[in-house]
Amino acid sequence: MHRNMKIIGTGMYTPSRVVKSYELDQKLSLPSGWTFDKSGVETRYYVTDETASYMGAQAAKDAVKKAGISLKDIDCIVSGSGTMEQPIPCNAALIQNQLGLEMSGIPCFDVNTTCLSFVKALDLVSYLIDAGRFQTVLVVTSEISSVGLNYKHKESSILFGDGAAAVVVQRTPENESSKVITSHMETYSAGAFYSEISGGGTKFHPREHNEETEDRFLFSMNGRLIFRLSSKLLPSFMDKLLENTSIGMNDLKAVVPHQASGMAMRILQKKLNIPDHAFINNIKEYGNTIASSIPIALHETIESGKIQRGDRVMLIGTSAGLSIGGMIFEY
Amino acid sequence: MHRNMKIIGTGMYTPSRVVKSYELDQKLSLPSGWTFDKSGVETRYYVTDETASYMGAQAAKDAVKKAGISLKDIDCIVSGSGTMEQPIPCNAALIQNQLGLEMSGIPCFDVNTTCLSFVKALDLVSYLIDAGRFQTVLVVTSEISSVGLNYKHKESSILFGDGAAAVVVQRTPENESSKVITSHMETYSAGAFYSEISGGGTKFHPREHNEETEDRFLFSMNGRLIFRLSSKLLPSFMDKLLENTSIGMNDLKAVVPHQASGMAMRILQKKLNIPDHAFINNIKEYGNTIASSIPIALHETIESGKIQRGDRVMLIGTSAGLSIGGMIFEY
Repeated sequence: MHRNMKIIGTGMYTPSRVVKSYELDQKLSLPSGWTFDKSGVETRYYVTDETASYMGAQAAKDAVKKAGISLKDIDCIVSGSGTMEQPIPCNAALIQNQLGLEMSGIPCFDVNTTCLSFVKALDLVSYLIDAGRFQTVLVVTSEISSVGLNYKHKESSILFGDGAAAVVVQRTPENESSKVITSHMETYSAGAFYSEISGGGTKFHPREHNEETEDRFLFSMNGRLIFRLSSKLLPSFMDKLLENTSIGMNDLKAVVPHQASGMAMRILQKKLNIPDHAFINNIKEYGNTIASSIPIALHETIESGKIQRGDRVMLIGTSAGLSIGGMIFEY
Repeated sequence: MHRNMKIIGTGMYTPSRVVKSYELDQKLSLPSGWTFDKSGVETRYYVTDETASYMGAQAAKDAVKKAGISLKDIDCIVSGSGTMEQPIPCNAALIQNQLGLEMSGIPCFDVNTTCLSFVKALDLVSYLIDAGRFQTVLVVTSEISSVGLNYKHKESSILFGDGAAAVVVQRTPENESSKVITSHMETYSAGAFYSEISGGGTKFHPREHNEETEDRFLFSMNGRLIFRLSSKLLPSFMDKLLENTSIGMNDLKAVVPHQASGMAMRILQKKLNIPDHAFINNIKEYGNTIASSIPIALHETIESGKIQRGDRVMLIGTSAGLSIGGMIFEY
């Protein structure tokens, strides 16, 4: 059940443009303070001329530096992102290109399960590392949400930010104990249309974009239905995640949740009885950065010194799909 | 190196609308016969009202039936497609929904490396099956190319078709020898822009679609540059794929290539010295169905009785990225 895998470096990148909640209050003609009260987000970052692959490459360079390795040591690049930079080719190939590794031959592929893409990518990579397929894998998540926000839907548009994060993983050296202890995911597509962007793929090609159809090409969500379905499913999901482990909530040094929204995180923490001292919350600083939110929060938690080698960490969240996913690892 | 995995069922689906090459000759005001001569494609299928998830679900039902199992036996659904139905949620969740499994909780995620998405998905799944994470995995590939063709680029627009395929895999029972023998992929993003659709993701949002920009939202490729780079790389790639196996070309019952184009397949076969009797070629019937082309050809080869248990099969192809990928398995 365990997979030998050690996170040897993490990194992150946010675009240079900071967007404060009071700016959105003004933009959306809302009373001052409404955006922050409603979302729990004080600042978020929006790209100006940065591309997702550029951001991902900056985060990757940061992670590689922290890991004390060189880019040439990487033997696989995985993008775990819920957004794509362009329909063809995959994000990971564009990131390889941005890293100047264009003739390296390093295999590149994308994993996508929207906001849980990083967790799923790391989960898959743990099997590849454990089996000896690769020695040093770079997992990169880079998300641009700001191009797809629908400001007619105030409650969703104020939540999101852009950003990237990356981790470098290797097989755990002998005599060390870093490992993935368990992971689990469940998908309930009864909620497939509770949060979606329906236009932009093969169902509604970009040529169908016009004034009447523009909402299809922007993010929409029904927060009430998402909360109702996920609240019902979370407790049994957690039982499954912890099944066959001897781990309880109090054994975790940090629980790093998807930073979905202030309210979603309160519900998650309460439903799962996650103690305050372990619950990692940085939504105020970055907003919901889609799949980047978990690795950004993980990076910050590691950088702060809160997580030490030997500590147990849980990653957990819900995503469009509707999916619930989690992983427990020993750092 | 081996992973215990057995393909227990395969299926496919093509849309009801057949498009003959002489129709494209007329549509594109070309001399009669030009399209077939240039592409090697006689018929391809284009969707009318079918969605990718609908096609994927039909192929999946076919595979599940051939496997002699029920949909409820599946414990993971992976979409390995180069196109997405909608930006959010992922294809696999939409396919789960189409299969009527919307409250099953079966985990769903997407793997994308354009035309090699099926091979990469099957490769990843082999580690999950071998490690016992899942018992019965459905891998579905469903591609709609027809919405993104650029008829101003005659040579690429005539190549493609739509279609779906699926496989069901399980752990190999004791006393049987089905297995993945090896797999390998290399990505050279020096060729990242040799074949691409640059618009429709976060770089160029669909709102930027207009008469001047429309080409960005359609497929473009520079066949000459792709052939030059991949021809140079294919021989050493094959050495790597076969490394640490005792397998040579003559040990393979079937080599199932990505059905890229008549010319690309001739180059591939010649460069790699693949004997005629093993080389599977159905491009005449379906065109290039992106990542569906390998599993459609695999399905037909299994159905025809050409591949029997114990036979060794190679999947191989190039994709946007530019990636080269392959896998050898014992059926």
